[in-house]
Amino acid sequence: MNATTGLPFDDFRRLLEDMPAPDEEAAAAVRARDGRLTKPPGALGRMEEIAVWLARWQGRHAPRVERPVVAVFAGNHGVVNQGVAAYPQAVTQQMVANFQAGGAAVNQICKSFDLGLKVFELALETPTGDITEAAAMEEAECAATMAYGMEAVAGGADLLCIGEMGIGNTTIAAAICHALYGGTAEEWVGPGTGVDGEGLKRKADAVRRAVAFHGGHLKDPLEVLRRLGGRELAAMAGAILAARHSKVPVLIDGYVASAAAAILHALDPRSLDHCLAAHCSAEPAHRRLLKHLGQEPLLDLGMRLGEGSGAALAAALVKAAADLHNGMATFESAGVSDKEG
Amino acid sequence: MNATTGLPFDDFRRLLEDMPAPDEEAAAAVRARDGRLTKPPGALGRMEEIAVWLARWQGRHAPRVERPVVAVFAGNHGVVNQGVAAYPQAVTQQMVANFQAGGAAVNQICKSFDLGLKVFELALETPTGDITEAAAMEEAECAATMAYGMEAVAGGADLLCIGEMGIGNTTIAAAICHALYGGTAEEWVGPGTGVDGEGLKRKADAVRRAVAFHGGHLKDPLEVLRRLGGRELAAMAGAILAARHSKVPVLIDGYVASAAAAILHALDPRSLDHCLAAHCSAEPAHRRLLKHLGQEPLLDLGMRLGEGSGAALAAALVKAAADLHNGMATFESAGVSDKEG
Repeated sequence: MNATTGLPFDDFRRLLEDMPAPDEEAAAAVRARDGRLTKPPGALGRMEEIAVWLARWQGRHAPRVERPVVAVFAGNHGVVNQGVAAYPQAVTQQMVANFQAGGAAVNQICKSFDLGLKVFELALETPTGDITEAAAMEEAECAATMAYGMEAVAGGADLLCIGEMGIGNTTIAAAICHALYGGTAEEWVGPGTGVDGEGLKRKADAVRRAVAFHGGHLKDPLEVLRRLGGRELAAMAGAILAARHSKVPVLIDGYVASAAAAILHALDPRSLDHCLAAHCSAEPAHRRLLKHLGQEPLLDLGMRLGEGSGAALAAALVKAAADLHNGMATFESAGVSDKEG
Repeated sequence: MNATTGLPFDDFRRLLEDMPAPDEEAAAAVRARDGRLTKPPGALGRMEEIAVWLARWQGRHAPRVERPVVAVFAGNHGVVNQGVAAYPQAVTQQMVANFQAGGAAVNQICKSFDLGLKVFELALETPTGDITEAAAMEEAECAATMAYGMEAVAGGADLLCIGEMGIGNTTIAAAICHALYGGTAEEWVGPGTGVDGEGLKRKADAVRRAVAFHGGHLKDPLEVLRRLGGRELAAMAGAILAARHSKVPVLIDGYVASAAAAILHALDPRSLDHCLAAHCSAEPAHRRLLKHLGQEPLLDLGMRLGEGSGAALAAALVKAAADLHNGMATFESAGVSDKEG
């Protein structure tokens, strides 16, 4: 199969070309109502912008967050053979079981804020190719995984939080960023779940070798995803694009989720207009990546867990932004004097 | 009445001297359990620290947020005669009615996150003295207002969010900061609810004149509060101290609430150890004030509304931190391999 012109990716490219436009009428309706709410103009800061953003991408006047969904995608990675991870690969499957049993961090946040949780397990028994010496995936597999990721919004949702689990996947994220944005491998790697010293050197070395190995084939962002990515990253890219088509605004979690988003951004920067960065991870390269994506994170709490935990927390803010916009009284209805007195 | 040695303030000083110590045993128990939870150590960042902080000041092993309360204190200020505010003074009373009717911003956030709301109306029909030419309050009144503020935790609470409403009170906050920390009046004033140009100049001028007028009497922080403060600030100082005695951790809202906290901090920096700054306000001087208080805000969303809105939002994070700590599985219980594999 010719990887750059094969049919499977073409379906995805067509979806990218056909992206729905923003609903500026809905956005303007939010702004108009916001100006009448019992508060000084602008006094709710980013909470006001979030309400506008929700309406613009949900395509409706009263932005609502009634069916928020957290989608966590889990994958395994051949590159762990290079000694880049602090935990054994079996932990990916064990954490999926933990998600299913309700014991992980993201489960608690979903309970705290009434968020739905969907876990997507992506052929964990068959890790992707070791990117230092092979492509992670064939094009057909990569495209099928992207299509599977689109299921994230299939059951209906009005806000999607994107997260992941996969031992070794901060190495994958670093390789993607190094391929897309250059710099040095060291600039894009960090401790992940906790490597340091020699482990961190092996990680940077693996990223450098992976990008060198795939060298001339990394011009097309979808080839970057196929060769250097992982199944959970392909699925997240699919989920983000599907959400756009389903009028579902998206909160992007940490470094790995942002690297998946970066593939879309490299294909067409407008493809992330319906997305907000939920938080800035403690993984050092995340801040740099967010700058490339033009995103200002909503939260900055030093979290670096993945599994959608930062996005799920930020969903609470987004819910509150909708509740504020919809529930507040107007100067008129409350009998409060406006600025002119 | 001799303002610096009168009896009323002495009761308050005694409470400051008798502050309960932190419960380091409870804090250590949180740390110990945290180390066994199914996540890399430290991966939840500040959410882990919040759980430790809750336990330390609630004085119990399992930190819980089951009775969070938002207390909003409303006062009026003689200094509005100096043309320092963008809205008429009547708006304070109108907004209190709006709180009671459920139409204000803070009401929506309380509904979103199941927070209790208490509104304290502080003699709105009688504004405090104009600080540019008189003391805001007599000592007896100031002390009585502080005592009234202590009612915030009287009905029981396990987390207290402190907020305020009062046309003109960012001028009061600026005067307190200028008196406590020096600098120029301009450094401590900002747009508040929306003054600019000439209004902003009048505001800085009023702050400068107020601090000059009370000149030699501003060594004692309680005198700063009495002379330059306002009733809602006195009540918030009382509420923060009462919370400490009742083992209730506190989230401090924006610039005005932080200025009330600054009075306590100037009396004894340890008096705010049970407090976290909920957010950084868009009011420019707030960031500077938080540095003086040694506080790193939890949220930074460009909000500048007051009425406890930032603290109420941050309460969602604090609730989630407790839920995470209490609800997550351990490596052992979930059958997840720890780092050593």
